[in-house]
Amino acid sequence: MPLSRRTFLGQMATAGAIAATPAVLRARPQTKPIVVDAAALRARIEALSVFGRPAGGTFSDGVSRVAYSDADVAGRQFVCDLMDAAKLEPRIDPAGNIFARRAGTDPSLPPILFGSHIDSVPNGGNFDGDLGSLAAIGVIEALDRASVRTRHPLEIVVWSAEEGVAFGRGLAGSRIVAGDVKPADMDAVWNGLRRGDGVRKLGGDPERIMNAVRPKGAHHAYFELHIEQGGTLDRGKTPVGVVEGIVAIERYTATITGFANHAGTTPMADRQDALVAASHLTLAVREAVTNLPGRQVGTVGQLEVVPNAPNVIPGSVRMTVELRDLSSEKLGGIIATIRERAKQIALTTRTQIEIADLSRNPPALASPEIQGVIERASTSLGLAAVRLPSGAGHDAQMMAQLGPMGMIFVPSIAGISHSPKELTLWPDTANGANVLLHSVLAADVL
Amino acid sequence: MPLSRRTFLGQMATAGAIAATPAVLRARPQTKPIVVDAAALRARIEALSVFGRPAGGTFSDGVSRVAYSDADVAGRQFVCDLMDAAKLEPRIDPAGNIFARRAGTDPSLPPILFGSHIDSVPNGGNFDGDLGSLAAIGVIEALDRASVRTRHPLEIVVWSAEEGVAFGRGLAGSRIVAGDVKPADMDAVWNGLRRGDGVRKLGGDPERIMNAVRPKGAHHAYFELHIEQGGTLDRGKTPVGVVEGIVAIERYTATITGFANHAGTTPMADRQDALVAASHLTLAVREAVTNLPGRQVGTVGQLEVVPNAPNVIPGSVRMTVELRDLSSEKLGGIIATIRERAKQIALTTRTQIEIADLSRNPPALASPEIQGVIERASTSLGLAAVRLPSGAGHDAQMMAQLGPMGMIFVPSIAGISHSPKELTLWPDTANGANVLLHSVLAADVL
Repeated sequence: MPLSRRTFLGQMATAGAIAATPAVLRARPQTKPIVVDAAALRARIEALSVFGRPAGGTFSDGVSRVAYSDADVAGRQFVCDLMDAAKLEPRIDPAGNIFARRAGTDPSLPPILFGSHIDSVPNGGNFDGDLGSLAAIGVIEALDRASVRTRHPLEIVVWSAEEGVAFGRGLAGSRIVAGDVKPADMDAVWNGLRRGDGVRKLGGDPERIMNAVRPKGAHHAYFELHIEQGGTLDRGKTPVGVVEGIVAIERYTATITGFANHAGTTPMADRQDALVAASHLTLAVREAVTNLPGRQVGTVGQLEVVPNAPNVIPGSVRMTVELRDLSSEKLGGIIATIRERAKQIALTTRTQIEIADLSRNPPALASPEIQGVIERASTSLGLAAVRLPSGAGHDAQMMAQLGPMGMIFVPSIAGISHSPKELTLWPDTANGANVLLHSVLAADVL
Repeated sequence: MPLSRRTFLGQMATAGAIAATPAVLRARPQTKPIVVDAAALRARIEALSVFGRPAGGTFSDGVSRVAYSDADVAGRQFVCDLMDAAKLEPRIDPAGNIFARRAGTDPSLPPILFGSHIDSVPNGGNFDGDLGSLAAIGVIEALDRASVRTRHPLEIVVWSAEEGVAFGRGLAGSRIVAGDVKPADMDAVWNGLRRGDGVRKLGGDPERIMNAVRPKGAHHAYFELHIEQGGTLDRGKTPVGVVEGIVAIERYTATITGFANHAGTTPMADRQDALVAASHLTLAVREAVTNLPGRQVGTVGQLEVVPNAPNVIPGSVRMTVELRDLSSEKLGGIIATIRERAKQIALTTRTQIEIADLSRNPPALASPEIQGVIERASTSLGLAAVRLPSGAGHDAQMMAQLGPMGMIFVPSIAGISHSPKELTLWPDTANGANVLLHSVLAADVL
């Protein structure tokens, strides 16, 4: 009978050696490290892609598995079936999140939670969310195969409605678990669908939504494996990214009021053209963001012209300004610069510009300890790793409110995401799953 | 019995004196000149405003008398009743235009045609078109009161569907009369309405639409009294504008193709942001137009962003570019400058910009002789007049294809038009009607 994992890991932790060399490597010097079944992972990503695939399409035609859709329901059933087959007993919480638990050796310890989501944006790709969700199942199976028991219970999760596609205010299942929910949120209606009905369609219980909330400290740690959705790893040929945190996202609405007038009879000098002002402002946003060193980004993604006719001078424009960085302070400086420029633009174009707050997500920093765990797990597997921020939002961001959080990124070819062209090479998906596995094991002894 | 108008005007024309002093002033030295009934004109403009008025509104709430609407039909009936009362016999041609004729003394001469339209844009004003239509009736009545017979027959007209609101390609009744029509145009469908059915609703005959076409030389001259819809006369406190011509209108579509990508994960340096390129191009259009001296105008009035989400870098933008000037040659130079700038913008923003022709209306010049007639008529009435181009399109533009055309402008307060705020002071409407009356009389002897 092999050394019980609990005893062994306890010894290693005491010796302080766990950090330098992965436990599994030292425990079985003659064997290869425990690994996730790469072929099964690939087969499952391909199988899941069928739910929401465009009619007549193939894997590379992407997926539209929008939250609460029939495709979402079918994809979730596919995942539950996999959990059943792995002798996990999936259960659905009131928010529609799918959880499954593997007991640890110490029932008094909180679980290590890991997973992701399987809903997609319309016309999205087959890796965003799917990889982290299916790899979580693979991790449990690998531990089963190796007969490894952890001290902490392991809990895997498939979060509901991560993409925030439906309803004005995205209300991901992870956000609900983190406590940012009130019963009235279930009454929101979008495209004729009441959110509560959507949650119920997923097997959730909108009447008991507050019961989905978990307290701070509910988890020993939260891990999420995800594709980068940016080009840093792909450009650098780096297989693993250790996420430093999820950037703050600040959104503003700029409303520019000019005067709609006849495009033929109004001399150029007399115009109060809201679109001319909006053009200046769009360029000012880019300038304010790029004038500072760093990785911050800023985007004018949405812009609406009123009345929007070829022969009428635009009377008003409403546009969004989105800023992202790990530092809220830096974003504060940038929006101040933009407001200053907006004042000048309003004067020179004889328009009024009002910039209002739309939403504000604070940065969610990954725990430094967990970053170290991921980095060492990578190194132990012979995989180079770099630290980088996540420019995209993730369920991990919500979990950071409840306890230590860490994310593992794998490369996205050309950084393309939210597109059928989204692509991560199969070896990279397997690397990511293995880093997840060994990070979970390392965290178990922290 | 007074000197017959025909004989008298013939003598004046022979003597060359008509140009310097209005015939009516010299013919009746002790009396005031023939004038249009200003009170009746005002009362009729106010009465017509009821058809298409917002529920519960007043005159100053504007009008929505869109072509082919029930309000349009009712407004036209009101005008026909006025014509009947004036012993004119209105008839409706196959295009839905209302014509009414007063015989001249020489049946061999072609008519002098004058009038305007009564359809409006949605949420428009009560002077655009209405003034010229109702003043035309007032002119006939004034001549009747003064027992003046002209040599040429006088024909007044209320054109159908001038505003081009319905159907992608506006097909004003005046355009049909000018010959720019084919039977298949009647099959166009817009908002569930077949154009032929709309024309029939107005009393027209879509099956015989080609019979509405008139040949070149059909009219001795065409006059149209209209509000300026710009601010030149109001600013200059000038009661009368002598229109030099209707500007050429050239419309282009610029399609900018960048690359839609994640607004959080795509570094600023890697972006191909179609909206940043569109902003540069919008400013370049304004610059190209204002860098040259003159009264040309240029407008980006319509702009659509794809996918238009706060968190996605704009992948493509489609925008319209509209240029107007009396000189097509000048417009050719401006669009060449814009194309040159577009090439540079495409390079620096790493986007593709394609500029395609959308539509092209050549300029319609007012006849120099008719301009002189209007100018002298104004002077004779003690009204200052300036020459100016019309930046807006008018039925007169179509009539210029058939023969000599002239337009009389009166001031629009603050240049506002196509708005409930559209306003022309009552004395200015009367001045315009009197200049129309005396221009018609002067043209009769040319």
